[in-house]
Amino acid sequence: MQPYRERLAKLEALLEEENLDAILVTRSPNVFYFTGYRGAGFLVLARNNGFALLVPPLEYLNALDSVKENDVDDKVEVVGYQPYGLPEDLVLAPKQKVLQKSLVDSIIEIIGEEKRVGSDLTNLTLYNELVKKLKLIDIDKKIAHMRMIKDPWEIERMETAVAIAEEALQAAIDSLDYGVSEQEIAAIIEYSFRVMGADDHSFPPIVAFGENTVYPHASPSKRRRLEPGMPVLIDLGAIYKGYCSDMTRTLVLDEGPEGFRDTAEAVLEAVEEAIDLAAPGVKTGELDAKAREVLRKHGLAYYFNHSLGHGVGIEVHEEPRVSYGSDTVLEPGIVITIEPGVYIPGKYGVRIEEMILVTKKGAKRLTRFPTRLWL
Amino acid sequence: MQPYRERLAKLEALLEEENLDAILVTRSPNVFYFTGYRGAGFLVLARNNGFALLVPPLEYLNALDSVKENDVDDKVEVVGYQPYGLPEDLVLAPKQKVLQKSLVDSIIEIIGEEKRVGSDLTNLTLYNELVKKLKLIDIDKKIAHMRMIKDPWEIERMETAVAIAEEALQAAIDSLDYGVSEQEIAAIIEYSFRVMGADDHSFPPIVAFGENTVYPHASPSKRRRLEPGMPVLIDLGAIYKGYCSDMTRTLVLDEGPEGFRDTAEAVLEAVEEAIDLAAPGVKTGELDAKAREVLRKHGLAYYFNHSLGHGVGIEVHEEPRVSYGSDTVLEPGIVITIEPGVYIPGKYGVRIEEMILVTKKGAKRLTRFPTRLWL
Repeated sequence: MQPYRERLAKLEALLEEENLDAILVTRSPNVFYFTGYRGAGFLVLARNNGFALLVPPLEYLNALDSVKENDVDDKVEVVGYQPYGLPEDLVLAPKQKVLQKSLVDSIIEIIGEEKRVGSDLTNLTLYNELVKKLKLIDIDKKIAHMRMIKDPWEIERMETAVAIAEEALQAAIDSLDYGVSEQEIAAIIEYSFRVMGADDHSFPPIVAFGENTVYPHASPSKRRRLEPGMPVLIDLGAIYKGYCSDMTRTLVLDEGPEGFRDTAEAVLEAVEEAIDLAAPGVKTGELDAKAREVLRKHGLAYYFNHSLGHGVGIEVHEEPRVSYGSDTVLEPGIVITIEPGVYIPGKYGVRIEEMILVTKKGAKRLTRFPTRLWL
Repeated sequence: MQPYRERLAKLEALLEEENLDAILVTRSPNVFYFTGYRGAGFLVLARNNGFALLVPPLEYLNALDSVKENDVDDKVEVVGYQPYGLPEDLVLAPKQKVLQKSLVDSIIEIIGEEKRVGSDLTNLTLYNELVKKLKLIDIDKKIAHMRMIKDPWEIERMETAVAIAEEALQAAIDSLDYGVSEQEIAAIIEYSFRVMGADDHSFPPIVAFGENTVYPHASPSKRRRLEPGMPVLIDLGAIYKGYCSDMTRTLVLDEGPEGFRDTAEAVLEAVEEAIDLAAPGVKTGELDAKAREVLRKHGLAYYFNHSLGHGVGIEVHEEPRVSYGSDTVLEPGIVITIEPGVYIPGKYGVRIEEMILVTKKGAKRLTRFPTRLWL
């Protein structure tokens, strides 16, 4: 059962609650969330006028197919806009509904001037144009909160995105051998994602060997090759039907560098303790503090130079933040990463990243890949 | 010779010209353009205070390495910001310069309140925060214009990005056979990009067979397999050392669908005529009009539902626009795509995309791959 009719109804309810004349959804992940449409375009809800998906001509056919496939073609009208001022016989598509106007003018035409419009708008240029004719009210946080609570339909997609990442990670690990380059391993990951049906990666895979592991966002190099004693850090995620996964493992093929094993055990302990704490009612900042406390006990907190995690869904980084001091209260349906890391300059880095789903009683891991990948 | 010192000098000159107290560069492609740094962070130039690269702690080491590698470590100071309010013994890096403040407060600390600040800021939330304390002046278009004119150092990188795309395209074409899926071809492209040393793709590759070619931005499917008579459209681009390529070919393994060959010849004619016209002094809109005129002659203009092209560089879509009516005047050093397309609903689509560099006398093709890939 497609979730889009229910989500569109939430926007209609928001229109009433906030006493708005219209809603304008501009950010692609939000347009996708409400309609299932993936491509350039905005979603407009105007009182008494219903929903319009406003798209450039090259996306018109795609948008028509999309509303049909996602079972909202009776709710959402596809409207093209074409700002080019083309001569009559070159104008696209007489059979299609295409406004011969710029994007801004098309929005105003659909909504009407001087209206109260709720929007997720974050683009300053577009804001400056629209605010001349509309009264804009920020509803970005309200939409982010809707998206934060995942339904079973979304969890299913995310589980597949995790499964794809784990198969790719296995293929990568199977190809690890002294002499292989970071880029070759990244190539295997990208290839695996695609053949397993991923839409794309969630982010370019991080593959780091040896001292390159001290950079949390290391870029794979064609020249850096695996040598005995080097740790390997792989951080990867796939997008499946619009939903992201994100996970990290650090491993060694041998003893690894001095102290590696103790550090890795400490990081793993931080992961486990943070996950054990996760449950409805707990603040995300408490999870971060817990992981830091574990690492402090081992004298390693100083080397943990980023947040514990972040929400994952249609975007690989979305609400909630999982940082020191953040006060979002966990609820069932929230999906976050737990990814403490310890980066010792000039030596090595260790990060282990799990994805968890908050349940009624606690948290369930979405990642299943073994975490302890050292001797 | 690294270009960054020269580019930083341009920002210093802009500070004088516009009588600014400071410049704040927020968009990643712009920060990369001026410093060579790739990661989260902003570039700040404050009068009498020089340049600071303001980065979150997890990027601190990366940023330090980057300014050294790019030969600007005497010009640009790396400054961390850390908004978490962590307890003293968990605070990152006493040896590092880290402000215990939010990003916004760190910017204000470096620049000072009430100052005149030129910025490329396009994020509304950040704008709303900063505008309370600073007088913000938009310099986004000025930076875009600097970036639009490529120097030989940049062209060299883009030529490599093109060469990588062309090798990947050859690998994809070599793997085309009846029964292969769109996703398998996309997988080969992603793999080839990586093993040849690309940082990433410029965009997820478009691989479309048969009727899927009528969608200009088609997504590759795992289930759609190549059958006799189907055309194949592949649109791909790689990023090499931060610079993008972008190219498209449409081909058939056999006769293709009825009318395909004539349509493909017409599209190719539009490509050639637009490239022949490209030279300093010509407006980009004239190139678009020329391509439309060629397609109109063949009765196909109605099916050309997008712009002729766009600038390419650090971003795969950047200035200038190459659309009907756009009035950017071509200058030597501008790199654009020329990509007319004809999409006949229910039948097939054809697009051919070349990348060209405007020279003193005309234009040089950066793409070298054969364009006529039909019988």
